[in-house]
Amino acid sequence: MLIVKKFGGSSVADNEKILNVARRCIEDYNAGHKVVVVLSAMGKTTDGLIAQAKSINPNPSPRELDMLMVTGEQISVAMMAMAISSLGVPAISLNAMQVKMHTTSTYGKAMFKKIEKERINNELDSGKIVIITGFQGINKFDDFTTLGRGGSDTTAVALAAALHADACEIYTDVDGVYTADPRVVPDAKKLDEITYDEMLELASLGAKVLHNRSVELAKHYGVPIIVRSSLNREEGTIVKEETKMMEGVVVSGVAADKNVAQISLLEVKDEPGMAFKIFDALANKKIDVDIILQSIGRDDTKDILFTVSRSNLSEALEILNKLKDSLGIKKIVTDDKIAKVSLVGAGLRTHAGAAAQMFGVLYNAGINMKMIHTSEIRISVIIDEAYADRATRAVHDSFIC
Amino acid sequence: MLIVKKFGGSSVADNEKILNVARRCIEDYNAGHKVVVVLSAMGKTTDGLIAQAKSINPNPSPRELDMLMVTGEQISVAMMAMAISSLGVPAISLNAMQVKMHTTSTYGKAMFKKIEKERINNELDSGKIVIITGFQGINKFDDFTTLGRGGSDTTAVALAAALHADACEIYTDVDGVYTADPRVVPDAKKLDEITYDEMLELASLGAKVLHNRSVELAKHYGVPIIVRSSLNREEGTIVKEETKMMEGVVVSGVAADKNVAQISLLEVKDEPGMAFKIFDALANKKIDVDIILQSIGRDDTKDILFTVSRSNLSEALEILNKLKDSLGIKKIVTDDKIAKVSLVGAGLRTHAGAAAQMFGVLYNAGINMKMIHTSEIRISVIIDEAYADRATRAVHDSFIC
Repeated sequence: MLIVKKFGGSSVADNEKILNVARRCIEDYNAGHKVVVVLSAMGKTTDGLIAQAKSINPNPSPRELDMLMVTGEQISVAMMAMAISSLGVPAISLNAMQVKMHTTSTYGKAMFKKIEKERINNELDSGKIVIITGFQGINKFDDFTTLGRGGSDTTAVALAAALHADACEIYTDVDGVYTADPRVVPDAKKLDEITYDEMLELASLGAKVLHNRSVELAKHYGVPIIVRSSLNREEGTIVKEETKMMEGVVVSGVAADKNVAQISLLEVKDEPGMAFKIFDALANKKIDVDIILQSIGRDDTKDILFTVSRSNLSEALEILNKLKDSLGIKKIVTDDKIAKVSLVGAGLRTHAGAAAQMFGVLYNAGINMKMIHTSEIRISVIIDEAYADRATRAVHDSFIC
Repeated sequence: MLIVKKFGGSSVADNEKILNVARRCIEDYNAGHKVVVVLSAMGKTTDGLIAQAKSINPNPSPRELDMLMVTGEQISVAMMAMAISSLGVPAISLNAMQVKMHTTSTYGKAMFKKIEKERINNELDSGKIVIITGFQGINKFDDFTTLGRGGSDTTAVALAAALHADACEIYTDVDGVYTADPRVVPDAKKLDEITYDEMLELASLGAKVLHNRSVELAKHYGVPIIVRSSLNREEGTIVKEETKMMEGVVVSGVAADKNVAQISLLEVKDEPGMAFKIFDALANKKIDVDIILQSIGRDDTKDILFTVSRSNLSEALEILNKLKDSLGIKKIVTDDKIAKVSLVGAGLRTHAGAAAQMFGVLYNAGINMKMIHTSEIRISVIIDEAYADRATRAVHDSFIC
C-alpha cells in the first residue's frame, strides 16, 4: 500500500513529538508500505514568521511573505528526515520546488494545478520514507506560493490523488469526526464513516476537523480521507463518497456555530435589482453571506434579513451604511448574540419528517427560532446564542442518542 | 554599472541592521546602478540550525543538514526584500534553486559549477534590486547544497563573474585590509590595493577578512573585490591582479597565526618513500600540513619537522603513533606553544634583502626562530607563541612604518 500521512504543526512542535511521528511512520514502513509524510511548520512557526515580516514591513508583498513562510515547512521536513534516519530507516525531505507542486500564481491563497510524481516515486522506489512540505507550491514564475490556512490538509489530499495512494490519513488531536462537539454533548459518538458532503456541511458549521478545501478536493478525486488522532491508535473516521447507511441512521451530526451575526435591512424599496446591489457590494469586499430571507413586500417595501460571520459584521455595516440612502433602506438592525445550530445527514434527503421533528424538539425545549434554512442534507436554525449548547444537546438526544 | 554587494550575518542580524543595509543598496540603485545583493543567514541562525539538527540526530545526513541550513539565507533575503520595498524601491528575493546556482554534489562543501543568469537579468531589467541567498547552491539531484564556511563571499564573487559585474563589494566589520592586525599593531595602515596573491597569503595566515576560496575564484575570473565596512563610508581595499607598485613599497602586510603546532619526528629511518607514507596518511584524514623541514640524514636516520593546525594536533598524533613502529620513527615530539609570523608582499619577489632584514629585526628583538619558510611573496618564521605580537610589531615597524 501507498499511504499519505499528514501531521499538523502541533504534532511536530518539538523533538519528542517529531520522534513520535517518526515512529508512527516507521511502523507503516516496516509493515511493508510505501510512506509519504506531509508536514506543517513546527508549532507556531508560521505565526512567528508572519510577525517577523510585519515587524519590518507592515504590508509585506505577498510574494516575499510566501518566500519567508515556506522556510517553516522546510525546517519541519528536514528535522523529520533526520529523526527517521536516527531510528535507522532511510528518509528524504522534499520541498515544493523539488517535488514540483505547481499551483496558480496567487500568493497566499494558491490552488494546486499539477503535482509531478517522478521525484517522489523514485525516492519511494529506492526504499525511502518521503517527507514533503505541506501548505506550499510553486507557480509559473518559479516562485514559492502558499495555499492559505488549512493548506497542509489540501497538500496531503492532492498528493494522495496524484500518487493514487491507497490511503490518506489526516492526523489531528481528536479521535475522528463526532456527532457533536463532545465538550457540549458528552454523549456524542465518534462516526466510523461520513460522506464528503456531510463533512463539508459539518466543517462549514464550525466542526473544525478538516479544512473544507481538502474535503472538496478529496471528493473531486474520490480520495478517501481517514481522520484520526496522533495521540492514540483509534481507528478514526473515514470520509468518503458513500457510506453504509444503516436503516434509521439518518443524521451524522449536530453542529453549532457561534461566529454568526444577523443583519436586518428594514423597509427596503421593492425594486428589481435591489438584492443584487446589496449582495454584490458585500461580495466585492469578500464578505460571505450565509442565510438570506426576504419578507413578502408590503406598501412597496420589503425586509431583507441575512447572516454574516460575526468577524465581518462591522465591515458589512460600513458598506451598507454607505449604500443606505441610495438604495432607500429605511433602517438597519443587527444582532450578534445569535448562533446557528444545524443537523447534518445524507439521510435527511429521504427523511421528510426530520425538519418537523427538529422544530418540535426546540419548541419543547423552549427555544425560539429566528431564522430557518435548509439544504438537501442540512437543517439550520438561528437562535439566541445563550441557547446554543442546550439546543445542540436536545437535537442530538432526539436524533442520535 | 552592475554592482554585487555582499553582507554577512552580523550585518543583517536584526531589523535595524537590515534596514541599514537596505538604505545602502538603495543609494546605489538611486544612483542609476543595477544592484545584486548577496546575504548570509541572520546573525547566528546557521549555528542555531546546526544545533537544532544535532539535537534530534547527533550525526545528521549532510543532505538533510543542508536542506535545513539553507532556510537561514532564505529568511534573510525575504526580510531584505520586504525592507527595501518598505522604503519604496522594488526588490525581489531569490534562492539558489530559483537562480539555478549549480554546484558539485558534495553536501556541506559544494563548489560552484555554473550560475544561470536569465532570472537575475530579467529581474534587474524590470527595475528591481535582486537579493540572493549566499552560501548555497543546487546539485544535479535538484537538492540544496551548502558551500561551507565563508561560502557567501564565494557566492558574491561567483555571481559577479557570471554577471560580468562592474564591482563586487564584500562588506565586513573592518574598513578594509590592513598591513597588520590593528589590535596588535596600532600603527597598522589600511591598504588601498592588494593583489590576489598577497590577499591569499594574508588570508591563509589568519587575517580573516576574505575567505581564500572567494579570492581564488576572483583571481581565476579576474573579478576585482572591494573589501569595505558596513559601518561607515570608507573606501575600503581593492583586491585585484596588479596594483600600482610605488617604489620602495615592497610589503603589503604582516600577519601572525597562532593556530599552529609543530610535530618533530626524530631519527626516522632514511629510506625512500618515508615522507610520502607519513604525509599521505595525514592527507587521507584531511589534515593539512603547512611548513615541512627535513634534516640532512645522519647514521641512516633523519629528522622530519612540520607544522599542522593546532586543532588538528591530537588527531595527527594518533595517526603518527599508529605508524611509528612500521616506519621506524624513534621519537615524536610536539610543540603547541608556537606561532607563525609572516611578511607578505608581491614586491618581495624582487627584493632580495627582505629575508635578511626580517631575520635581523627578530634577532635584534631577541626572538629566536624555530623554523623558516619562504615563498615568492611571503617569508614566514615559526617562533614562540609568547613573542608573536612583539615580532609582528617589530617586523611591521621595520618594513611598513
